Amino acid sequence: MSDLADRVERACREAREAAGVLGHTSTDQRNRALKAIAEALVQEAAVILDANAEDLRAARERGTSGALLDRLALDRQRIQGMAQGLRELVALPDPVGSIEDLRTRPNGLLVGRMRIPLGVVAMIYEARPNVTADAAGLCLKSGNAVVLRGGSEAFRSNRAIGEAIARGVTAAGLPAGAVQVLDTPDRAAVDALLAQDRFVDLVIPRGSAGLVRSVQSRTRIPVLAHAEGVCHVFVDASADLEMAEAIAVNAKVQRPGVCNAMETLLVHQDAADTFLPRVVAAMRSHGVEVRGCPESRARVPDLRPAVEEDFGKEFLDLILALRVVESLEAAVAHIRRYGSRHTDAIVTRDHAAAMRFLREVDSSLVLVNASTRFNDGAQLGLGAEIGISTTPFHAFGPMGLEELTARKWVALGSGQVRE
Amino acid sequence: MSDLADRVERACREAREAAGVLGHTSTDQRNRALKAIAEALVQEAAVILDANAEDLRAARERGTSGALLDRLALDRQRIQGMAQGLRELVALPDPVGSIEDLRTRPNGLLVGRMRIPLGVVAMIYEARPNVTADAAGLCLKSGNAVVLRGGSEAFRSNRAIGEAIARGVTAAGLPAGAVQVLDTPDRAAVDALLAQDRFVDLVIPRGSAGLVRSVQSRTRIPVLAHAEGVCHVFVDASADLEMAEAIAVNAKVQRPGVCNAMETLLVHQDAADTFLPRVVAAMRSHGVEVRGCPESRARVPDLRPAVEEDFGKEFLDLILALRVVESLEAAVAHIRRYGSRHTDAIVTRDHAAAMRFLREVDSSLVLVNASTRFNDGAQLGLGAEIGISTTPFHAFGPMGLEELTARKWVALGSGQVRE
Repeated sequence: MSDLADRVERACREAREAAGVLGHTSTDQRNRALKAIAEALVQEAAVILDANAEDLRAARERGTSGALLDRLALDRQRIQGMAQGLRELVALPDPVGSIEDLRTRPNGLLVGRMRIPLGVVAMIYEARPNVTADAAGLCLKSGNAVVLRGGSEAFRSNRAIGEAIARGVTAAGLPAGAVQVLDTPDRAAVDALLAQDRFVDLVIPRGSAGLVRSVQSRTRIPVLAHAEGVCHVFVDASADLEMAEAIAVNAKVQRPGVCNAMETLLVHQDAADTFLPRVVAAMRSHGVEVRGCPESRARVPDLRPAVEEDFGKEFLDLILALRVVESLEAAVAHIRRYGSRHTDAIVTRDHAAAMRFLREVDSSLVLVNASTRFNDGAQLGLGAEIGISTTPFHAFGPMGLEELTARKWVALGSGQVRE
Repeated sequence: MSDLADRVERACREAREAAGVLGHTSTDQRNRALKAIAEALVQEAAVILDANAEDLRAARERGTSGALLDRLALDRQRIQGMAQGLRELVALPDPVGSIEDLRTRPNGLLVGRMRIPLGVVAMIYEARPNVTADAAGLCLKSGNAVVLRGGSEAFRSNRAIGEAIARGVTAAGLPAGAVQVLDTPDRAAVDALLAQDRFVDLVIPRGSAGLVRSVQSRTRIPVLAHAEGVCHVFVDASADLEMAEAIAVNAKVQRPGVCNAMETLLVHQDAADTFLPRVVAAMRSHGVEVRGCPESRARVPDLRPAVEEDFGKEFLDLILALRVVESLEAAVAHIRRYGSRHTDAIVTRDHAAAMRFLREVDSSLVLVNASTRFNDGAQLGLGAEIGISTTPFHAFGPMGLEELTARKWVALGSGQVRE
């Protein structure tokens, strides 16, 4: 075994051992660790920023582009934000040990389901060193050990953040192995991590569709994909067009670079004559480039023609694909073919159409008369999220603390036996 | 690609196509299919029994043993039982489309989680041709397509049952591809099935630990293990010894050949002097062979000595391993080391001990003062089960209809956008 593979295996074994202890610590103890990590991050801000400056310098030397540099860059405010996120986690309810669905069986046996941690979570993500602190906090709070593998370009920042986390973890008396940061630029560390099915219970790849597919094809560990969002808004024949315009504009322009932003707007042919000119004008007034299908160009002739690749594409930018569809069924069929099961919305006044869309579109969040931008842990009431799962299995949509746990059955008896 | 691999891929692709339709059928339509399958099974009983007789003849020629032959054998009563199981499924609530955790967000958005089918479930099991009908029924009712791969020794029985299922499915107007029975004795069909990660969402291997491990190591599809039960009863120092005896005897002898039967009895040293002689006598009166650790043989000298392999062994027979432990902690440590995360129970009058055992033993069902035999879908109130998952992820313990579904988020708005 290579030195690197050996090191990764050791990290995962330590995480497994820590998980055995962590799952039975008190809420107070885990909360103390979150506060201590927040404190350590602020205290070590200068060290973290130095490491980040080195990462940025190296990235610039490799000719890294503006958007990626921005995701990589930390400043004092972003570090304060990481610390603040951890402090907010303290206030959230601890799912571990809570018992749900409690009921008494006819024989008097009281049965229910108790939440327990998943065990060891491995997370693989790109750039964004703040994810290192966010994910460590969510996993610790929910009693899980975590192995973190951030982007190669951020390894120095992640190492410095990892050291601050380790200080907080040990200060609170939690097992030091509970948070493992694989702070090496060597991409072989990912393969080594994906081979640790003896020690790792769940892999969360968070990033591009390419990253997620590559992880899924290389591991036996269960994977919860946190992949791209190819999100749609469908404006039905009966839609309130003022509402439809407001929702479409919000979904596209409020924050175009995130996964729950709209990428394709579908418009029912019966609404197209009236709606298309106004929505295109509104989009353009926000600097959006609209690329239209032939039917939409028949209504708005100066649209740039959409090509086949524009549908199903995650632009993450002020670009919108626009298609006229002949029916609700055609809209659903389009979404099934080109969507990514992330977030899709219908705007309609027709109750039957709303209910049908709600049932037939199987995305992690399906909305009626609201913006796709609501697919977010805080917006849906989870408090915080480690990402948005596009895998239906176990957890679909924003993964908060509860989604980082499993449930075992418990039964309280007074001597019951089976007849 | 071999003919067999090609055939398996076609079956999985058809199942995937059927799943797209099935998930949006009405409860009535799926219930009609269950009734039609029940009818077809009874009508085709003679054909099924002929096929089963051939399987039995071939098994006898290969020198198959009594217990396995018994699991393979069908008769009119067992076929009636399969039909009856399907009819009982009709009466159970349909989880698909139900919305849980509905709440209104501060902005007026009504959010909740709607149950949807998992998609295509592949099930790999040994002997027991009745599982073919049971699993098909549970998957259909929960809107899932299913690919069934039973034991090679039962392939003729499974083929005949599969034909009856197909008649019922098409009679109710459901897509014919919804239930696929891989009715070939060729074991290469399992490998071909495990390669279908494009079409299959979940694999359920149900059988020996060896079968489950072998499936887990050969596929990228998420696996929910339905493995062996190495179940423990721990009799604490403060236990009511009459209750402890009744629970231990029930857990061991009420049906020794099933996964939730007790295999190892742990006794606190402070209760051992009094409890061991009486429980050994009770076990022996039920024909149980008890194998004891040195500390238990000091109390009951004529016990057969337990060897290391007796602990952690699933006897599935009237054999019991017995160990004296010095504390609750030692009992928990024993269960963590030798258990299979299936079912474990404590008998105690001490509330703190009960709560501690409940929290620290992470098995799919943990009981206080009740028999391990209650780990069963019907006993816990699920109505019916496809098996008992020993994987914490997604579903832990008995998997009923609800556990065969996932949850997507839904949001009902009136024009909400993000600020």
